[in-house]
Amino acid sequence: MTLTSPGPTLGVVGGGQLGRMLGEAAAPLGVEVVVTDPTPDPPAAPTVRDALLGEWDDESTFRTLAERADVLTFEIELTDPDTLERVSEATDTPVHPHPDTLRLIQDKYVQKEALADAGVPVPDYRAVDSADELAAACDELGYPAMLKAREGGYDGRGNIPVESPDDVESAFEAIEGPAMVEGFVDFERELAIMGCLGDDAIDTFPVTETIHREEILRESVSPPGASAAVREQAREVARDVLDVMSGRGVYGIELFETTDGEILLNEIAPRPHNSGHWTIEGCHTSQFEQHVRAVMGMPLGTTERRAPTVSANILGDVDERQPAALSGENGVLETPRAHLHWYGKREVYRLRKMGHVTLVGESGSVDTDALLEEVRALRDGLTFQG
Amino acid sequence: MTLTSPGPTLGVVGGGQLGRMLGEAAAPLGVEVVVTDPTPDPPAAPTVRDALLGEWDDESTFRTLAERADVLTFEIELTDPDTLERVSEATDTPVHPHPDTLRLIQDKYVQKEALADAGVPVPDYRAVDSADELAAACDELGYPAMLKAREGGYDGRGNIPVESPDDVESAFEAIEGPAMVEGFVDFERELAIMGCLGDDAIDTFPVTETIHREEILRESVSPPGASAAVREQAREVARDVLDVMSGRGVYGIELFETTDGEILLNEIAPRPHNSGHWTIEGCHTSQFEQHVRAVMGMPLGTTERRAPTVSANILGDVDERQPAALSGENGVLETPRAHLHWYGKREVYRLRKMGHVTLVGESGSVDTDALLEEVRALRDGLTFQG
Repeated sequence: MTLTSPGPTLGVVGGGQLGRMLGEAAAPLGVEVVVTDPTPDPPAAPTVRDALLGEWDDESTFRTLAERADVLTFEIELTDPDTLERVSEATDTPVHPHPDTLRLIQDKYVQKEALADAGVPVPDYRAVDSADELAAACDELGYPAMLKAREGGYDGRGNIPVESPDDVESAFEAIEGPAMVEGFVDFERELAIMGCLGDDAIDTFPVTETIHREEILRESVSPPGASAAVREQAREVARDVLDVMSGRGVYGIELFETTDGEILLNEIAPRPHNSGHWTIEGCHTSQFEQHVRAVMGMPLGTTERRAPTVSANILGDVDERQPAALSGENGVLETPRAHLHWYGKREVYRLRKMGHVTLVGESGSVDTDALLEEVRALRDGLTFQG
Repeated sequence: MTLTSPGPTLGVVGGGQLGRMLGEAAAPLGVEVVVTDPTPDPPAAPTVRDALLGEWDDESTFRTLAERADVLTFEIELTDPDTLERVSEATDTPVHPHPDTLRLIQDKYVQKEALADAGVPVPDYRAVDSADELAAACDELGYPAMLKAREGGYDGRGNIPVESPDDVESAFEAIEGPAMVEGFVDFERELAIMGCLGDDAIDTFPVTETIHREEILRESVSPPGASAAVREQAREVARDVLDVMSGRGVYGIELFETTDGEILLNEIAPRPHNSGHWTIEGCHTSQFEQHVRAVMGMPLGTTERRAPTVSANILGDVDERQPAALSGENGVLETPRAHLHWYGKREVYRLRKMGHVTLVGESGSVDTDALLEEVRALRDGLTFQG
């Protein structure tokens, strides 16, 4: 390769916080970033060369993006794979991960089928197209079960617990469109691994423990409390998952560690993922730099962890949608080894991801309990309630 | 403080690599950056919100910058302090560091006088306005001596060694304008410290060893080979220097460790400095994040070092000015814990600073010799010679 100025350009569909952090990571590598997003002046705007305005299937904007880019990628699964593939072929601009991967992941049932076929351990699941089918499936899988919209859900949206037969009717009505149902997983903890597919290279970042509430990620902890054997098993499952994926890039792989110490795959995101934000300070290569390296065809960086690291999401804590103004951030800024990451979103609403705080521990230490407690206290000191 | 979107804006005079790295550091803090530079599409352009076009004393551009900014700063000493101060006052926009500091530092003789008056140890020096005065000064200081243009020099430009009386005439002629001469310093090594002035806070980053050739910084090493006593003395001198400075910000403080183990001040830069680039990966807070925090009035971050760290500059190795195209960077990208920083300059010429490579060592180790050797090998594997 040769580095030039202006450097190679990465076109990213999506200009949210992931696009913003991709922009932060790309500049030192000499890679320029252009994003497209349906929102004017999206979070990524200040960190990238240009932000184009366009919907997730806007062919003309995708085309403008592709004409400026050497490689295309996406940071949101809402991206339309057909448009992306058409534009990629018409402009001879490679896209990573492959649109087939996006298709496979967008439909949670198709995703599960492909992974189960490849031998990846997944919770029991059924496709359900009616309340009757849901009732029959729950009879087999047992109550409680989790009903999921096959497409379009994220951050818990589109997921509805079915506690008993009484819930079946209302749960199915609440899902608009095709659905699947999963057996309840009795898990010890949730884990996540950022997997990396480079040009003839495969790697995984260290295992992370992820803590959700209301199905939204609250904190990530690396290393996790899981045993070495469980961590190794998680890494093996992650590699099996990557074998099913097509196209270079970083993949967020969410896992359950069951109470029996088994690993089950939960879901995959074909892009940098919230559970890997801790890598910015916690690893020598961040997931964002790794994604840029991977999709651009550069060598992958080391995935080595520098120190125990925890991250906590800054979520909207207001009931009414309103202009974003965060107070209390001096508590974060005054804490040694605490790092503020602000996403620059104009408006805040309840549970919207507005930023995150990362806290780095002593290199060589493995005790993350105190770190987790401290980062929670820092996060709890932040509020959008004027 | 309160974090908003769009966040507070920092207006930076200068959009070179320092502005680029300020932009990289500002985004996570929620600070937007606008720069002004005489070059269209300068290195900082891809990492900042906007790059305005204007000379170093262009009042109308400074005014546009100030009207968009909450705080003004500069990343190059060529900035005209009078224009900056006038615009700051007219628009009621604070500027940090204070223009007085810029005035004091721009004239190397005035700088030396102020520091010597404050008790900071400096090499012997004299102002010289003619070849005769230079000859007389060299008789007192001894040969060899270093003749320096009082204003406008950087990266060794404007510095002329005077080896013997035979050189006096030609040396003085080569300096156009007022000059000063310094006694030769018999140094063991050169050191640098990044000093930080916050809002009622003062701190210093760990001491760095700086290795120059042809008076241009080649490598920085932290920790340096100097003894603990010498490092402590360097830190004390740095604090005395900061007492003379007025206005918040990060200051590059270049020092000599003499063969007698004494610390002498060499020069000061009122801004992030090449000798502090290693802090991006080597410290919990980088010098760029620290400068943003300081000038914006946020709390300073910890200056703790994470691990032994070395940096090597990527300098132009071509004789003719030409479009920049660097080969060999895969050697850097493939090396674990090596970090590439590309500045995005369009053209390369001999000894132009085009980027740098940082290599991070084992946390807890203090042996930097092998690290230095390795980073030199990585740097030597890079070339602009097509």
